[in-house]
Amino acid sequence: MMIRGSTGLIAHIGYPTHTFKSPMIYNPYFAHAGIDAVVVPMGCRAASYPALLAALFTLENIHGALITMPHKVSTLALVDAASPAARVAGACNAVRRAPDGRLVGDLFDGEGFVRGVRRKGVELAGQQAFVAGCGGVGSAIAASLAAAGVAAISLFDARPESAEALCRRLRAHYPALRLRTGEADPAGHGLVVNATPLGMHDDDPLPLDVTRLDPGCFVGEVVLREHTPFLRAALARGCRAQEGTDMLFEQIPAYLEFFGLPTTTPARLRALAQLDGPPRQENVS
Amino acid sequence: MMIRGSTGLIAHIGYPTHTFKSPMIYNPYFAHAGIDAVVVPMGCRAASYPALLAALFTLENIHGALITMPHKVSTLALVDAASPAARVAGACNAVRRAPDGRLVGDLFDGEGFVRGVRRKGVELAGQQAFVAGCGGVGSAIAASLAAAGVAAISLFDARPESAEALCRRLRAHYPALRLRTGEADPAGHGLVVNATPLGMHDDDPLPLDVTRLDPGCFVGEVVLREHTPFLRAALARGCRAQEGTDMLFEQIPAYLEFFGLPTTTPARLRALAQLDGPPRQENVS
Repeated sequence: MMIRGSTGLIAHIGYPTHTFKSPMIYNPYFAHAGIDAVVVPMGCRAASYPALLAALFTLENIHGALITMPHKVSTLALVDAASPAARVAGACNAVRRAPDGRLVGDLFDGEGFVRGVRRKGVELAGQQAFVAGCGGVGSAIAASLAAAGVAAISLFDARPESAEALCRRLRAHYPALRLRTGEADPAGHGLVVNATPLGMHDDDPLPLDVTRLDPGCFVGEVVLREHTPFLRAALARGCRAQEGTDMLFEQIPAYLEFFGLPTTTPARLRALAQLDGPPRQENVS
Repeated sequence: MMIRGSTGLIAHIGYPTHTFKSPMIYNPYFAHAGIDAVVVPMGCRAASYPALLAALFTLENIHGALITMPHKVSTLALVDAASPAARVAGACNAVRRAPDGRLVGDLFDGEGFVRGVRRKGVELAGQQAFVAGCGGVGSAIAASLAAAGVAAISLFDARPESAEALCRRLRAHYPALRLRTGEADPAGHGLVVNATPLGMHDDDPLPLDVTRLDPGCFVGEVVLREHTPFLRAALARGCRAQEGTDMLFEQIPAYLEFFGLPTTTPARLRALAQLDGPPRQENVS
């Protein structure tokens, strides 16, 4: 990768930044494809974010911004227009400047999830879906499942008010969608999603009762670890499954398109990614 | 170079950005030395600059900013403290956040010039200097020559008011320094500097009458081309000389120290720099 005066900027904004993965996914692809752009981490606290976002979009060489914790929800109020997925989920994780100067927000977590599931041959139209976890990523996935034509979504969250709030936003945009909250049982659902953080740590409890999974169901995971206990249990029951990293790589082409950059396949992006690059000799930052 | 979540940011701010050289100097050095930092170009117009600078310095992972045209003069009013060199020159080209939160500005063009001249064995104490061009870089060089102990500086600029203004700022800081303006003749000076842009283009006139150079004098150039007509003429008269790129590479260690990063020699930086990197297959920015 060679950064020069002509290089376009994608600001990756969040806090803390040390867990960011996007620079190690996008930048190797840009280098490989000869795309003169770079993703740069920007560690920004909540109080400083509105002014930072506004200032960055005055730059002549900005392609856009990738937004992550803790700014995804507040971004929705800072953009001039947002996609239906962003409005249903109540969050944005990508911002660009439209040719007319307006800031446009979108959200591609759910799109990545849906693209991955479809690539694995799952038919979403008419599907009965169960989403455990109604925070940011659960909301995004539910919004994209609704847009993809599922017949019903059951929402569960340990904080019932989160599930109820998402239910109301989905109902406002998709009046024909059958919605249910308050039920932790995944039985009877053809698509079951863990959208909670449970599974990030080895001693986490399972996000739901896996003995109640229909053996023929398709299970999706958002936690970015290989073979979480939840996925292992589901596979042991005979379910098919999608890992968190599948959702991650499936959404990158959507961002590239959004930023107006040449795109490629998730498989290519995964092959080029350097998520486990060599450690630095010295870390001064 | 691998940018990751832990990478520290040095914003290189100016407009236009396409002539920027710092990313191709600093970043190869950072990659080689295992320093987890990156210089990123930010194309910023004058009207947007104050808000951008303030917002960038709220970032948790910013080491500092390199400031170039058209912002060097306006930066002085945006920082909380500035070095004598910056105040005499009326400009800053580097900003960092001090541990107490204040923004600190400095200017290292002149420091780079002085370091390079000294490395070539020139004694500056008591020297008679002639500076052609009293804009930003000429002011910076004059300020650093004054700090280095020269006895006298003759200032010349095609716009006499520029030379007079620099003369007043130097006099306020260095009352014992002998200053002269309005005279275009370099005769009688042991150190003669071209700090005008003349020499950037092949059909530029010479910045001063080279037939009036003392054959034993030392000549410095700021134009970043090898063997400008001015340097060629001076060398032909038997003068010793410093090229613009010497000043460029001599100042980088000063910036690295200012930003709190591990430093190295100008020669090492020059050997690692990729100023003529391969062209991109495709430029989308």
